[in-house]
Amino acid sequence: MTDDRIIATYRVTSEPSRIADRAQGLAIEQSVECPLDAIGDPWVRDAIVGRVALIDQIGAGRYAVRVALAAATAPAEPGQLLNMLFGNASIQPDVALVDVELPPAYLAAFGGPKLGLDGIRARTGVHRRALTASALKPQGLAPAALAAIARQLAEGGVDLIKDDHGLADQAYSPFAARIAAVGRAVDAANQASGRRALYAPHVSGSLDEMRRQLDLIRAETIPALMMMPMIVGLSNFHVIAREAEGLVVLAHPALSGATRIAPPLLLGKLFRLLGADATVFPHAGGRFAYTPETCRALADAARGDWGGLKPCLPVPAGGIAIDRVEELLSFYGRDVMLLIGGSLLAARENLGAEAARFVAEVAAHGA
Amino acid sequence: MTDDRIIATYRVTSEPSRIADRAQGLAIEQSVECPLDAIGDPWVRDAIVGRVALIDQIGAGRYAVRVALAAATAPAEPGQLLNMLFGNASIQPDVALVDVELPPAYLAAFGGPKLGLDGIRARTGVHRRALTASALKPQGLAPAALAAIARQLAEGGVDLIKDDHGLADQAYSPFAARIAAVGRAVDAANQASGRRALYAPHVSGSLDEMRRQLDLIRAETIPALMMMPMIVGLSNFHVIAREAEGLVVLAHPALSGATRIAPPLLLGKLFRLLGADATVFPHAGGRFAYTPETCRALADAARGDWGGLKPCLPVPAGGIAIDRVEELLSFYGRDVMLLIGGSLLAARENLGAEAARFVAEVAAHGA
Repeated sequence: MTDDRIIATYRVTSEPSRIADRAQGLAIEQSVECPLDAIGDPWVRDAIVGRVALIDQIGAGRYAVRVALAAATAPAEPGQLLNMLFGNASIQPDVALVDVELPPAYLAAFGGPKLGLDGIRARTGVHRRALTASALKPQGLAPAALAAIARQLAEGGVDLIKDDHGLADQAYSPFAARIAAVGRAVDAANQASGRRALYAPHVSGSLDEMRRQLDLIRAETIPALMMMPMIVGLSNFHVIAREAEGLVVLAHPALSGATRIAPPLLLGKLFRLLGADATVFPHAGGRFAYTPETCRALADAARGDWGGLKPCLPVPAGGIAIDRVEELLSFYGRDVMLLIGGSLLAARENLGAEAARFVAEVAAHGA
Repeated sequence: MTDDRIIATYRVTSEPSRIADRAQGLAIEQSVECPLDAIGDPWVRDAIVGRVALIDQIGAGRYAVRVALAAATAPAEPGQLLNMLFGNASIQPDVALVDVELPPAYLAAFGGPKLGLDGIRARTGVHRRALTASALKPQGLAPAALAAIARQLAEGGVDLIKDDHGLADQAYSPFAARIAAVGRAVDAANQASGRRALYAPHVSGSLDEMRRQLDLIRAETIPALMMMPMIVGLSNFHVIAREAEGLVVLAHPALSGATRIAPPLLLGKLFRLLGADATVFPHAGGRFAYTPETCRALADAARGDWGGLKPCLPVPAGGIAIDRVEELLSFYGRDVMLLIGGSLLAARENLGAEAARFVAEVAAHGA
């Protein structure tokens, strides 16, 4: 790979007799998006038009197509990069984006996780075992009720407590009031336990609103936050990830399924590249349909060696119950944070004990 | 429909024996996202949990499921609304979001197009016939070369000239230099012709960057702009659409995906609701796979009566050539703007004459 080309790998469904034309069409769609004979400028033809690098049959009527896109079309601006990788092709039903190989300049420009997996271990004080997480549910509860849940989870030993992803700034739980109540409850539990559970509020809205929320988070000395990159736009996710210096940045996959970008690429590689210290995703076998292969590839993309970027902590979630802890830890190893939400909360008034059971199970198997 | 519920319609693939459970699961996923027995608060169960309103079989193994979601979970903030409509369900392979019915408060809060179809007619001075548009391609050309193309298009009578959607702020065509050159070329053509062609630069990046670009657009007295809502995030699209008071706002469908959020809903209804005066989409029979039914529904959603919102101008595009003008005008009627990009530019040095031929064809059939 040269420094002036990005290699995008697409999975294309096609008949054998058409794949060569289809691949060429894709290379044009994701670069100049016009007929080649409309291009008089030889430099544009040589340097800007996308080039098919490889077509590989991977199954009946299924092909992996590697396209070399000109880095010049995609300066290190996250939204524009995504646009040039898949903006128009996302509208075509026969193609999915499965991988991207970026020249080193992008990694330097975007920076990757500022804290990453090791930073989260340092902040939580959990160095040897796998980590645990849960969520404040259901939305509709007032701040005081959410704070009570948070306190029980923290007292039970859970390492990270996130807002339910539906919690934003609703009337029943306004952002400022919620983070104050929950933040203080978690602090109180930490002081009593000597542990360092982290609370991650959901930061959402326009970039202006996200900045206001970040200010409130800092004012409450809350050590983490969660965002939904596909909802807020990758550019703004990256801006806030940078401005949240010192805070753990958790990425949530809401809306990630709407456009056929392979989860290991989107939730593993790209969210990591743009600053996610941890990335939430649905583990196989729950309410979502990721395969074990997808989950493994996602964890590898998040954690693996990549141009010096810090590893991003995988956070498998989505319908996990305590009886699957051993299985998941065996699958992911110890550099993982398991997120159990609803099934812990189903314990209702026994939440604290159930949280402790979760934590003990992870400690028993994940160290 | 009551004012406190949003009705979301999903298309679900399921076996008959499972659809009731699946629908209920969807209603929970898009509201409280936890087991019902984890919810002790009766108000939350009554007022917040999503409710299945209707299950309708629409084909073999295919169902339309109407879910009443609590408006309280989704204050009038665009990203949060999309999150509650489809955030998690977008990750499930058996469901697509096809329609949304919103209480009037959302229409009032979001506002819809500020100029709309009629405002575009007023700005261009084109009152009776269908409108015409083209695009500056290929990216890679310097501002002066793009300006020359723009001048030929404007001299040929094209009503709106947009940036190629790949043009952002690349080194070969920096935003400020490009819009100055192109803006002046279009102004000069307009002064000579007495017409009022509009130039719509592509505004992109974080919200900060979009605001800087909007300032530059105003400084050059450019009358329009284009954005990609799914790339920049709906919240930020809405912010800029509001701040671009007096300018024509064109929405582009990059990253909108093929079918998981139905195009009539996303590109017709939601983009209109959030402030698109015009909405670009691929017409049937080109490089993309929208059916004629989808295109008709999209145009209806964009233009039709909806709670007093101004109509949004449909802009079918994507591989249209002049020989299809009559067919498209017959299909859409005259309240449409036809966008022809690549096939005009293939005329190379005869671009001006080809543009004039396009415009004449529209005038002949589209009034």
